[in-house]
Amino acid sequence: MMMREVAVIGIGITKFGELWDYSFRQIGIQAGLEAVYDANLSGSEIDAMYVGNMSSGRFIDQHHVGALIADYSGMASNHIPSTRIEAAGASGSLALHQGVMAVASGTHDIVVVGGAEKMTDVSEEASNFILNSAADQQWESLMGATFASLHAMIACRYIREGYATREQIAQVAVKNHLHGSLNPKAQFQKPIRLETVLRASMVAEPLTMFDCSPISDGAAAVVLCPMEMAHEYTDKPIKVLGIGQASDTLALYQRDDICTFPATKVAAQKAYEMAGLEPRDIDVVEVNDDYTISELLALEDLGFYQRGEAGKAVEFGETEIGGSLPVNTSGGLKARGNPIGATGVAQIVEIVTQLRGDAERRQVKEAEIGMAHNVGGTGSTVAVTILGVA
Amino acid sequence: MMMREVAVIGIGITKFGELWDYSFRQIGIQAGLEAVYDANLSGSEIDAMYVGNMSSGRFIDQHHVGALIADYSGMASNHIPSTRIEAAGASGSLALHQGVMAVASGTHDIVVVGGAEKMTDVSEEASNFILNSAADQQWESLMGATFASLHAMIACRYIREGYATREQIAQVAVKNHLHGSLNPKAQFQKPIRLETVLRASMVAEPLTMFDCSPISDGAAAVVLCPMEMAHEYTDKPIKVLGIGQASDTLALYQRDDICTFPATKVAAQKAYEMAGLEPRDIDVVEVNDDYTISELLALEDLGFYQRGEAGKAVEFGETEIGGSLPVNTSGGLKARGNPIGATGVAQIVEIVTQLRGDAERRQVKEAEIGMAHNVGGTGSTVAVTILGVA
Repeated sequence: MMMREVAVIGIGITKFGELWDYSFRQIGIQAGLEAVYDANLSGSEIDAMYVGNMSSGRFIDQHHVGALIADYSGMASNHIPSTRIEAAGASGSLALHQGVMAVASGTHDIVVVGGAEKMTDVSEEASNFILNSAADQQWESLMGATFASLHAMIACRYIREGYATREQIAQVAVKNHLHGSLNPKAQFQKPIRLETVLRASMVAEPLTMFDCSPISDGAAAVVLCPMEMAHEYTDKPIKVLGIGQASDTLALYQRDDICTFPATKVAAQKAYEMAGLEPRDIDVVEVNDDYTISELLALEDLGFYQRGEAGKAVEFGETEIGGSLPVNTSGGLKARGNPIGATGVAQIVEIVTQLRGDAERRQVKEAEIGMAHNVGGTGSTVAVTILGVA
Repeated sequence: MMMREVAVIGIGITKFGELWDYSFRQIGIQAGLEAVYDANLSGSEIDAMYVGNMSSGRFIDQHHVGALIADYSGMASNHIPSTRIEAAGASGSLALHQGVMAVASGTHDIVVVGGAEKMTDVSEEASNFILNSAADQQWESLMGATFASLHAMIACRYIREGYATREQIAQVAVKNHLHGSLNPKAQFQKPIRLETVLRASMVAEPLTMFDCSPISDGAAAVVLCPMEMAHEYTDKPIKVLGIGQASDTLALYQRDDICTFPATKVAAQKAYEMAGLEPRDIDVVEVNDDYTISELLALEDLGFYQRGEAGKAVEFGETEIGGSLPVNTSGGLKARGNPIGATGVAQIVEIVTQLRGDAERRQVKEAEIGMAHNVGGTGSTVAVTILGVA
């Protein structure tokens, strides 16, 4: 149980993609300011900041980016605390959860949570090296394993067990690119065909280029406050109903069964319990589709489908906007883009947009309860957040 | 106000120094297990972990060390959440504060907070580059500024303003090496003379080798729980009375006055207010002596001395064990060592040791209230923690 209820009162997000014209500090500030304006706040009301970021230390040779973003967004003169959180791909949602706890604990009232990553300023070789350092360096990365190859192993096993066909896995990309075409902030805004996925260059069999989320720049931010203050700032506060976080072995080889991420199950269970809800109560969900196969694991581990049923659900259109459970309406990591540290916060921005009814062409009708599912590594850190109309 | 009171019920710390025989994961686990044993806990009682670390991503090519430490300490099977915090030299204390908020918010009961850094596995050139990336890369590091040179500028100005003499600044190192000689976990356990400091090789005028904290490997950990549960685990719980965190410009050149760190003042003010205490109530304090000059700034900014008085206080022995305000009884960053991400947690371990009365040869008599002051960069992130006998 949390001691104080927490609401999201503001959101901001940059365009995701290859943002050659903007620096890390610029995109971080852009998203943050947009969220602050959206919350009708003045800067002097902000009590604390959290920044989700995986590797500014390697991507832009800059550590200490909590203080950096506070400084360049004009918060240094107020000396407000700013803290950076890192858990690879789950950095953004863990930053969110720290912000939620900071408000719930009574330590702070108004908290800005941002996530940002600038990945395109280094060579492809360097970015691969950096990304692989979120796996177990000693037992995976040094042996040549990459996240693509690890997820390819999962996909092979998943297909072999008969849980889904290759085409059903590929259909995840088709669906998410379709959703991305409805999102003006998405990195990729063109629908693709199943053949495009299947015939694209192979990355790690059976996964092709179109099964993998891209390298992206981008930032996203939200503003949190105690629920009892939320109506001072917005007519549409969105309440944090439940949060859950869980860990697993860093290396995939140590798991008994690689067709499930137990950390997703545990994190979801905690979030469902805190919210007093079940999978059938969720109207819209953003899941961590860093690879197409990941979305199927997520849909099963979050309790939406029995094992072996998620692929069929995607094939039959159940997870499209208009279907029974719209998944990754933003386009997901696949089409909206995956600037690592920003992703978890971007998911929250999408869910809040849906619950506010502001999602325009990609709006899910009567969405009142939404979920975000964010993963670091091969299910080694998982965070689940449930939000609802207040 | 925090919604639940929080206690420290266990502490652990490795030897600090050049730990060639141990890996990052080994030292992290060693400190954590020691703290868990000290708290009379079984692993299954732990609800969450926080890890303070500055740059495993560059020092050991490994990101995602929250999950790594959870995994290698056997917590992966329980899937407990584990979160890494980074704020350069303040990483450890910010991890502690997140742990405190997690307990205070009601999200978790038993939380292990660790800090770890393995700095000696890279070349001196590489470690300098990594450390400098905690300054403003764009406006400081790229221009050739280093933390030693930035602190040397502070020292020059401080001397020129007549706030202290060169010898008084050097006396900080003499005092901290004396204290380090009483701490079996310290990196340096030999007392030094004033002449040693003054005649050592120059690093950045006026600071010599002995004015600078060393490159170190090490880890420290504490166990937190709600105050009302603390007596189930220990006869000597230590209560978290106040926490405060503040930011400032990342770059030093943007400050009006470089002989003070405003973020220290703001963080201390918050901590004092939460605790309902004043500087004169503090019996023992660990301050962030990354450079000797930093200790004098800290003593003034924390409210213990008026500007220009700290140097004299050190000269007259007031800050030694047995003096009116013993400072850095552990040896401080200077002599205990400064494994960046571990430092903030190591300070808490020392204060808890003192408040429990377990500090043996370096025990401060009748110490009931203690403070830790931890800094990232040149005062860009500051965290202050006040602890008391429960």
